[in-house]
Amino acid sequence: MGDRERLVDDLRERLAATDFYRWAGIELLDASPGEARVAMTIEPHHLNIQGLVHGGLVATIADTAMGLAVRTRLEPGRRHVTIQLGVSFLSPAAPGTVVARGRVVRAGRQVAFAESEVVDATGKLLAKAQATIAVTADRGA
Amino acid sequence: MGDRERLVDDLRERLAATDFYRWAGIELLDASPGEARVAMTIEPHHLNIQGLVHGGLVATIADTAMGLAVRTRLEPGRRHVTIQLGVSFLSPAAPGTVVARGRVVRAGRQVAFAESEVVDATGKLLAKAQATIAVTADRGA
Amino acid sequence: MGDRERLVDDLRERLAATDFYRWAGIELLDASPGEARVAMTIEPHHLNIQGLVHGGLVATIADTAMGLAVRTRLEPGRRHVTIQLGVSFLSPAAPGTVVARGRVVRAGRQVAFAESEVVDATGKLLAKAQATIAVTADRGA
Amino acid sequence: MGDRERLVDDLRERLAATDFYRWAGIELLDASPGEARVAMTIEPHHLNIQGLVHGGLVATIADTAMGLAVRTRLEPGRRHVTIQLGVSFLSPAAPGTVVARGRVVRAGRQVAFAESEVVDATGKLLAKAQATIAVTADRGA
Repeated sequence: MGDRERLVDDLRERLAATDFYRWAGIELLDASPGEARVAMTIEPHHLNIQGLVHGGLVATIADTAMGLAVRTRLEPGRRHVTIQLGVSFLSPAAPGTVVARGRVVRAGRQVAFAESEVVDATGKLLAKAQATIAVTADRGA
Repeated sequence: MGDRERLVDDLRERLAATDFYRWAGIELLDASPGEARVAMTIEPHHLNIQGLVHGGLVATIADTAMGLAVRTRLEPGRRHVTIQLGVSFLSPAAPGTVVARGRVVRAGRQVAFAESEVVDATGKLLAKAQATIAVTADRGA
Repeated sequence: MGDRERLVDDLRERLAATDFYRWAGIELLDASPGEARVAMTIEPHHLNIQGLVHGGLVATIADTAMGLAVRTRLEPGRRHVTIQLGVSFLSPAAPGTVVARGRVVRAGRQVAFAESEVVDATGKLLAKAQATIAVTADRGA
Repeated sequence: MGDRERLVDDLRERLAATDFYRWAGIELLDASPGEARVAMTIEPHHLNIQGLVHGGLVATIADTAMGLAVRTRLEPGRRHVTIQLGVSFLSPAAPGTVVARGRVVRAGRQVAFAESEVVDATGKLLAKAQATIAVTADRGA
């Protein structure tokens, strides 16, 4: 198994280990060092009163993609926590599949910066996000 | 029925009209002109792998509180859309009830600014958020 | 000399030790543990083509107030660096004196969060800002 | 004179029409539809007490580049005002020339979104910024 497959497997296991991602309908598509792509299949209960995807879910999928991207860069025994999140909502998201690509902009010893683009199934850009992520010792480590 | 009760009823109806808020477990606590408070009961499937509330949900409840706060200031036939959202995560959110208070900072004709504080059941400050919200003509109006 | 006067003196010395603040016209008004207030006298060369204070200067004065507020909470041998800054521009700033109050929202060991309100001479709210600030060992320490 | 030269000339005239940019040492390098590049020569009075470029100036140059980028897309009689600015400070900026490239992410009728990268003379990435920009009728129009 190559490094990339090991990376993807590790992240898939993390998502599978918690009910949150199943509940939210978020799954990992792909990952490589410094990047991760996740998808969310939009269900009727994800829509706001205007029939558009709730912005909080767009923030959720973007934050997930950025966190996993940073995760690919962490040494064992380190963990990441988003401390600041910014999202610009460029276009309303209609039902369908939404994909977020997260990318590490800079990974320091204690702080990492990441950014994300969220697109719909046609590739249309729905949102851009940025995260400031603290990197600390794992509690259990 | 007083103005405030009418306001609260109107917002409750909006939340009830969409499955999203029931699915997310978000309900309105109170509202007054320029303010809204919403609560979310944290369930096991809201937690991330570290046993803490996923930051995307904190963003979701803060955005909801701010949107409803702006809603209390809109004239009929106008609608609001969050175009930029910023969240600072101050303390990790453990299971329990999480409450977000949204407040209008400035409501202009085309743009409104709002802010939100998210606290846990003990009143501990979990997050602060800011939103830039576009105000436009209602599509159906 | 009381603790508060010592705090104010220490911050005044910091501002005086660098040409930047004199050049920018920024001076300390007051400080207490977790807070700092700075003022900037708007000159014609601070205005943009529309005759309003350039937003970058509003960001500068807000960031200065927040940095100094965090500074009041640092132990000796520690320094602060803003790593993320967000500013909402609520009203255009006309010539006159502009005052920014910075306040620590949460001061952790490695990360601090601060916020700031910028007002004009009449007390009108011009901008609100938030900063995520890294706290590290002083290089010279 | 080609369209691009006309664009650059128009922006240069705007910068020359106000003392702010001369005072701040900011000049236009280049522009094309949806993009603008500006440079700032760092002088000793631009440095903070740690000998690094004050973050407020990094915000200023990034905001200038984004505003001019949006400007290239405006129809006559329209003007732009930054309403929300976010800056991530990735690396400290040492003395030398600092260049910001601004780029329109989406230009709507009433709101535009832009982003900027700030680099030093060696091409090292110092900061990334995002702006939400209101587009309105020109006051004098």
